[in-house]
Amino acid sequence: MSERAQKYNWFFESSVIPYKALEIKNGLKIKKKLYSGKSSYQKIEVFDTFSFGKILVLDGISQTSENDEFIYHEMLCHFPMFFYPNPKKVLIVGGGDGGALEEVLKYPIEKVWMVEIDKKVIEVSEKYLPSISKGAFKDKRLKLVIGDGTKFIQGYKNFFDVIILDLSDPWGPAKKLISLNFYKNIKKALRKNGMVSVQSGSITVQPELVATINKRLKKIFPSVQVHLACVPLYQAGEYSFTLASEFNLDKINLVEMKERFKRLPFKTKYYYPEFHQSSGILPKFLKELLN
Amino acid sequence: MSERAQKYNWFFESSVIPYKALEIKNGLKIKKKLYSGKSSYQKIEVFDTFSFGKILVLDGISQTSENDEFIYHEMLCHFPMFFYPNPKKVLIVGGGDGGALEEVLKYPIEKVWMVEIDKKVIEVSEKYLPSISKGAFKDKRLKLVIGDGTKFIQGYKNFFDVIILDLSDPWGPAKKLISLNFYKNIKKALRKNGMVSVQSGSITVQPELVATINKRLKKIFPSVQVHLACVPLYQAGEYSFTLASEFNLDKINLVEMKERFKRLPFKTKYYYPEFHQSSGILPKFLKELLN
Repeated sequence: MSERAQKYNWFFESSVIPYKALEIKNGLKIKKKLYSGKSSYQKIEVFDTFSFGKILVLDGISQTSENDEFIYHEMLCHFPMFFYPNPKKVLIVGGGDGGALEEVLKYPIEKVWMVEIDKKVIEVSEKYLPSISKGAFKDKRLKLVIGDGTKFIQGYKNFFDVIILDLSDPWGPAKKLISLNFYKNIKKALRKNGMVSVQSGSITVQPELVATINKRLKKIFPSVQVHLACVPLYQAGEYSFTLASEFNLDKINLVEMKERFKRLPFKTKYYYPEFHQSSGILPKFLKELLN
Repeated sequence: MSERAQKYNWFFESSVIPYKALEIKNGLKIKKKLYSGKSSYQKIEVFDTFSFGKILVLDGISQTSENDEFIYHEMLCHFPMFFYPNPKKVLIVGGGDGGALEEVLKYPIEKVWMVEIDKKVIEVSEKYLPSISKGAFKDKRLKLVIGDGTKFIQGYKNFFDVIILDLSDPWGPAKKLISLNFYKNIKKALRKNGMVSVQSGSITVQPELVATINKRLKKIFPSVQVHLACVPLYQAGEYSFTLASEFNLDKINLVEMKERFKRLPFKTKYYYPEFHQSSGILPKFLKELLN
């Protein structure tokens, strides 16, 4: 295959993550490159692929796809949104594609704040990936803030029921979004027994990241839980989602949850109460790594 | 990148599975090509890769790797070997790399039969991937048969405690290894309450295969269970392992299992009793697909 043919037909995810050369190249055959541009923060691309539908790519790394976004977004959002009783005030940091926002808005909340640093990601996602946000950016319950999540959070105390950190990989300026200081401010901004849900990386290719986030959250919150799901779009697949709260997250009343789940006014594709419990039972090596 | 450079440095898994064009290309950067040859059945290759250590490739498809073989082989073997009380006679069909054999031999069994159609896979695996079989082919409890598993099984009735089907993807001649007739003969060859464990494909890229194997096994066995694990080496990751038995597999005594697990004379890296239960709680869409 010539260089030209390959570049034209395939999108290859960057094989090198700054903190670790992965030496893995995931290629997706593309029907069409829909968008390519640069914001002040990053390179933004949208491809229409054969296997995953349309995908959003930031700085060469796949972020989300039409076909499997439900896995990532349900794991990230329904764990806190369903488990926490009747959340009213929700904060999403990051999540410019609008997928998390769309899940959160399925619940009868009062208001959701979304703090995304890169306006262009939202604009591109709304235009080229409308099936992911499904009009969520037009919902009247949304207060959209273009800015830095670490600064925004400092203005709030005992306020949010649920905080969702839908962040890309933490290198460069995004590093402070997994800092102990940021987590401290998250805890301050949460109401008593409020919950934070964190995209915490791949257990396959970033086990140190999963462990670091886990360790830091444990310093701040008495209850921390890791849940796993395989997100096919992501390099070498198994992904972790970490929940933290003052409330004891292990205290699950499955009977009550099942009753409540039946009454939800929408359907999920991935999440349900029994899975809430089981996805937190980790493979042995990972359980040992995190203890 | 020129064609030559790419071929030299990278192994790209074949992007097309005969029954479905996947349009996904997984590339692994290789340190060295250790072996390349042809048997009567298939092309066999061994690469030393940066991310997964040494890998075995059959007809262009990755089969197993040094670094993550423990996930696949523990999922396939410990579920039946640990759950079934004190298995003595075990049959493995396929599994030429010796990884399943090595897991099975950790238990105090009397004898294990291994029926592999391609002698060359065993020879190449023993020579180039010794860390996967760890000398298992030299164990005196092994009766190695080079031949066709569907024919071999016809000679046995009410005989095996556990049967493990460690097969490559079912196209071409391997198709009959997922046939209803083969499963009928498996059931005949099992003792009462014996268990069969089947590599049943990726839920991401082969959901029809997972469903077909499930449906056929349910026609033959009253109890069928699907367990999931993410195997990073495999294309778009989430893999299914199906267990079937006359015994009700849902009847789990976790307290007794945990006690028994403590007394095992070896350590696992992936499997443990709580995970035995939880890995069978499937994501909602898959649960619905299989019902």
